[in-house]
Amino acid sequence: MGDPAGIGPEIIVAALHRSPSWLSKCVIFGDVEPLERAARSLDVKLPNVTVRCPISRGGAEIVAGQPSVDSGAAAVAYLDAATTAVLEGECAAIVTAPLAKQWAQQAGFSFAGHTEYLAHRCNAHDVVMMFVGPRLKVALVTVHRPLRDVAQSLSVARIARVCELVDESMRRDFAIVQPRIAVVGLNPHAGENGTIGDEEQRIIAPGMLAATACHHLLGPWVPDVAFRLALDGAADALIAMYHDQALIPVKLIDFDDAVNVTLGLPIVRTSPDHGTAFDIAGTGRARATSMMAAIDLAFRMVETRRR
Amino acid sequence: MGDPAGIGPEIIVAALHRSPSWLSKCVIFGDVEPLERAARSLDVKLPNVTVRCPISRGGAEIVAGQPSVDSGAAAVAYLDAATTAVLEGECAAIVTAPLAKQWAQQAGFSFAGHTEYLAHRCNAHDVVMMFVGPRLKVALVTVHRPLRDVAQSLSVARIARVCELVDESMRRDFAIVQPRIAVVGLNPHAGENGTIGDEEQRIIAPGMLAATACHHLLGPWVPDVAFRLALDGAADALIAMYHDQALIPVKLIDFDDAVNVTLGLPIVRTSPDHGTAFDIAGTGRARATSMMAAIDLAFRMVETRRR
Repeated sequence: MGDPAGIGPEIIVAALHRSPSWLSKCVIFGDVEPLERAARSLDVKLPNVTVRCPISRGGAEIVAGQPSVDSGAAAVAYLDAATTAVLEGECAAIVTAPLAKQWAQQAGFSFAGHTEYLAHRCNAHDVVMMFVGPRLKVALVTVHRPLRDVAQSLSVARIARVCELVDESMRRDFAIVQPRIAVVGLNPHAGENGTIGDEEQRIIAPGMLAATACHHLLGPWVPDVAFRLALDGAADALIAMYHDQALIPVKLIDFDDAVNVTLGLPIVRTSPDHGTAFDIAGTGRARATSMMAAIDLAFRMVETRRR
Repeated sequence: MGDPAGIGPEIIVAALHRSPSWLSKCVIFGDVEPLERAARSLDVKLPNVTVRCPISRGGAEIVAGQPSVDSGAAAVAYLDAATTAVLEGECAAIVTAPLAKQWAQQAGFSFAGHTEYLAHRCNAHDVVMMFVGPRLKVALVTVHRPLRDVAQSLSVARIARVCELVDESMRRDFAIVQPRIAVVGLNPHAGENGTIGDEEQRIIAPGMLAATACHHLLGPWVPDVAFRLALDGAADALIAMYHDQALIPVKLIDFDDAVNVTLGLPIVRTSPDHGTAFDIAGTGRARATSMMAAIDLAFRMVETRRR
């Protein structure tokens, strides 16, 4: 459910209301009250879904739009229980609604976010954030780094690992037998043969060479044409070097429908591509499209892995 | 004409062929032969336009797709003559077809490109590259810098100057009386209050404050939503911090129709948003859309300035 004071409850209710076939296949780790409140704000009946609440809040009420240590602690308890259910094989995948780092951390959560928490629980050393939309799939080599630190954060080993994890995911999660993965350069014009930066030659190309498990790597591509080429079908997935190199095109092209997928975990994890939106929580105005896409993708990834 | 061995001649012929009303209002600074060849490759009659050739090549033939010191020297001579014609008031604006830096420099050209040359001829100290498409207008604070140097290249004074030049251009060249100009942050999430980089607080916001001539500055905006907001009408122009922050969205959204405009010159200068494309020169395959947009925009800017 993520933070129960955020938009998590209402996007869950809206998603299940619109996709009744999911009801028998989903378990909500969260409280019933916020779901009931969300159903009222959306003017729908609370969908008949299994809700499991792993925490007793002792009567402290959660108010939409008013996060607190209580709502942060609840989000952490839901996450703990859902992760355990997946690790023990009771559930096949985890879809995380947004939590607020600040409140979760005040409640004792010691991770930067969901991804770091899940990596810890799964004992995973290399994880990769990938955005999957209807038209683009883009994985990130670096994520929440100041732009000035991006170049020095790249390494041959990290590039190679990201290439291999994306290649593996394309085959295992998306059933693309011979995935064509394009690596985006770091610099304008991909460095123009080293005249505008040399990371393409010094780090990115050697990283691609070191990714020996990959079938079909392309690049380093010129950043300002790479996304157009991928849209035109020249690659199945892109690997971007930094946050905004990926997120600017993803949010322009696959705006409301992009899903955040974590690669490198032994479990399937997806997430909508937005935050808690406390400013509109409880109004029923939050769009559920990304949550619906996240649930749908989790089902498809599990099915593809099983096949 | 730019480099006569590039696609310049054929995109000029194609543009004039499709827009006969321009014939009496344009002067081509270039050679007749490459234009005749281009007309043959496009299977059209050479449009009846004034051609002024400021250089005698002594019989050295220019072959499409085969740049040389001769073709580079010709491009420089065309540029010299056209610039003089504009500075002397004989022409109202200059539209530059692409030249090849490498060959121009071998012919004695001592500038990084057109823009630097024009800044020198016009005695202009601060110039700004802006891309103008049907849907987005984006100016750049830094251009051909390695990504690792971008953060340290920003300064309060440069941000302020770019803001003021874009504001002035919106009013003078585009007749937007109260332009709303949005400045894009440098870091993911625009730094998230200094937790992912501090340039927004330390440089960008102070630069905006120092741009006292501006009417309505917005930002610093979160990069991955800024371009969507501008597309939805929330700003008339954007100011990007680095090359790919601007060019990735511009090439996705305004692909073939973006025009490169130089701000900060006393003259109107536009240019298509592509290079010499020697690999396809002479085949008639080059698309003339960006050249047509560049000529059209130059006419509109001149008319707007006169009004």
